[in-house]
Amino acid sequence: MNPDLAWAVWCGERQRRIEDVLARVLPAADCAPAPLSRAMRYAVLEGGKRMRPLLAYAAGELTGSLPEVVDAPAAAVELIHAYSLIHDDLPCMDDDALRRGKPSCHAAFGEATALLAGDALQALAFGVLAGARLRDPAEACARLAEAAGARGMAGGQAVDLDSVHATLSRAELETMHRMKTGALIHAAVRLGAACGRPLADAEAAALDAYAAAAGLAFQVVDDVLDVEGSAESLGKTAGKDVAQGKPTFVSCLGLAAARERAEALRAEACAALAPFGAAARRLTELADWIVLRTH
Amino acid sequence: MNPDLAWAVWCGERQRRIEDVLARVLPAADCAPAPLSRAMRYAVLEGGKRMRPLLAYAAGELTGSLPEVVDAPAAAVELIHAYSLIHDDLPCMDDDALRRGKPSCHAAFGEATALLAGDALQALAFGVLAGARLRDPAEACARLAEAAGARGMAGGQAVDLDSVHATLSRAELETMHRMKTGALIHAAVRLGAACGRPLADAEAAALDAYAAAAGLAFQVVDDVLDVEGSAESLGKTAGKDVAQGKPTFVSCLGLAAARERAEALRAEACAALAPFGAAARRLTELADWIVLRTH
Repeated sequence: MNPDLAWAVWCGERQRRIEDVLARVLPAADCAPAPLSRAMRYAVLEGGKRMRPLLAYAAGELTGSLPEVVDAPAAAVELIHAYSLIHDDLPCMDDDALRRGKPSCHAAFGEATALLAGDALQALAFGVLAGARLRDPAEACARLAEAAGARGMAGGQAVDLDSVHATLSRAELETMHRMKTGALIHAAVRLGAACGRPLADAEAAALDAYAAAAGLAFQVVDDVLDVEGSAESLGKTAGKDVAQGKPTFVSCLGLAAARERAEALRAEACAALAPFGAAARRLTELADWIVLRTH
Repeated sequence: MNPDLAWAVWCGERQRRIEDVLARVLPAADCAPAPLSRAMRYAVLEGGKRMRPLLAYAAGELTGSLPEVVDAPAAAVELIHAYSLIHDDLPCMDDDALRRGKPSCHAAFGEATALLAGDALQALAFGVLAGARLRDPAEACARLAEAAGARGMAGGQAVDLDSVHATLSRAELETMHRMKTGALIHAAVRLGAACGRPLADAEAAALDAYAAAAGLAFQVVDDVLDVEGSAESLGKTAGKDVAQGKPTFVSCLGLAAARERAEALRAEACAALAPFGAAARRLTELADWIVLRTH
């Protein structure tokens, strides 16, 4: 099979797999209280690239784990991601009525139910991870808590709030994104890797370097797409970040330099994987996918 | 020492102890992002009866645990409780600008920061518990996740939302409160007990019966105080629950029958502890405290 096709097959298989896992761990749609159960399923299922679960599965393969062991951490990171999107879209945050081309959770279910659905998804993430067949599920929970909390994702969003209409240096912008999106991407990689054989210190450091570069690349590309998307579809307003006065890698570096930065980060992510040789193929392909995607 | 004084000393010591533990596990006030750190500390410290931590310490004593082992689960349940109060007070939920006699978190820090502070406190709760010196911290995380999630606290709040201006039977009202407040109270007791020697099945069942009765008694008394508090301070509007059209044990049973129900639940809680004999003294005293409190 040619490599592009093999990658597409691998990717599709795992995207279907995580969809099944998520559908199974979420409360059934008729489970009381039904509005909450439906809001949780609505916000999680049938949408998203599943980048974080894919990173977990790829890192699990790297350490010789079977996909069924990675299912729980892959689901946990996606549940955290999904809850963060619900809360991010609320009127008091980004106030976004659309998500993935359909009404955002609060637009569909009301603000109070959406708030609680996000809260319940965060609890579910820890519940799923605590029950995982890992060597040390408690250590995994501690890692996820760190990634999701005040020094990780939630902290990054708080920095983001304070940055509206501010001018950030490239270093400040990178720090914000390392917290806001990088921490959870890092957790996805390390929790997936924790499903297989133990890592040597140098291997753990290599995965950390990969995750840091790939996570930041993801955000730079997001900022580029936010601008290019609007530029290509003339007549539309400028991208959402620009409209909200948020500093982005494009506003900070310019479009051409932002594109170059994404490519440099992709190369950095792939170079970090060198100690693993061919075993890191899927992680390498994921870094390519993160930077070369068009949406 | 007379029993009342001994109880007051025990209670005060543990209230001071948990205050110190919480102050230590929370981000320092100047820890970046500072607004988030300050909002988290504001919502958790210097307030509250610390009933859930006291239940955890008392249950830990029952199984022969030292307080320093109970610190982590005691803090974890209180952090979950504190986050739920922040989110409960938000405009899209109960819209309450006051909490414990001071501005609620969003009134002091803005809605977005309050939302994120609640989110970060939930993550912190799991982080603290995952690092606890328990036999099985992962099982503890799974128990806390169940108590906090869609089948526990968050689910109970969703039922509560749907119940405004509805007439609930006593059974429906009890089901709602067993989820909304009972689940976390139950977790406080079981997580505290898990710090000491393993429980026999009959002992675990006895603690479950205690927690269920004490948790429900707490809510019945809350409803009674909501009415009596307003009746005693003439000129004020009626209690908050009544004003919001929420069904309560008083609206469901009447004031006298609600008082009787609280007393019956107190007796039920204490009776459940019989297998433990004098070792359950603090838990018995806590059930008394829950029902006989005046605020």
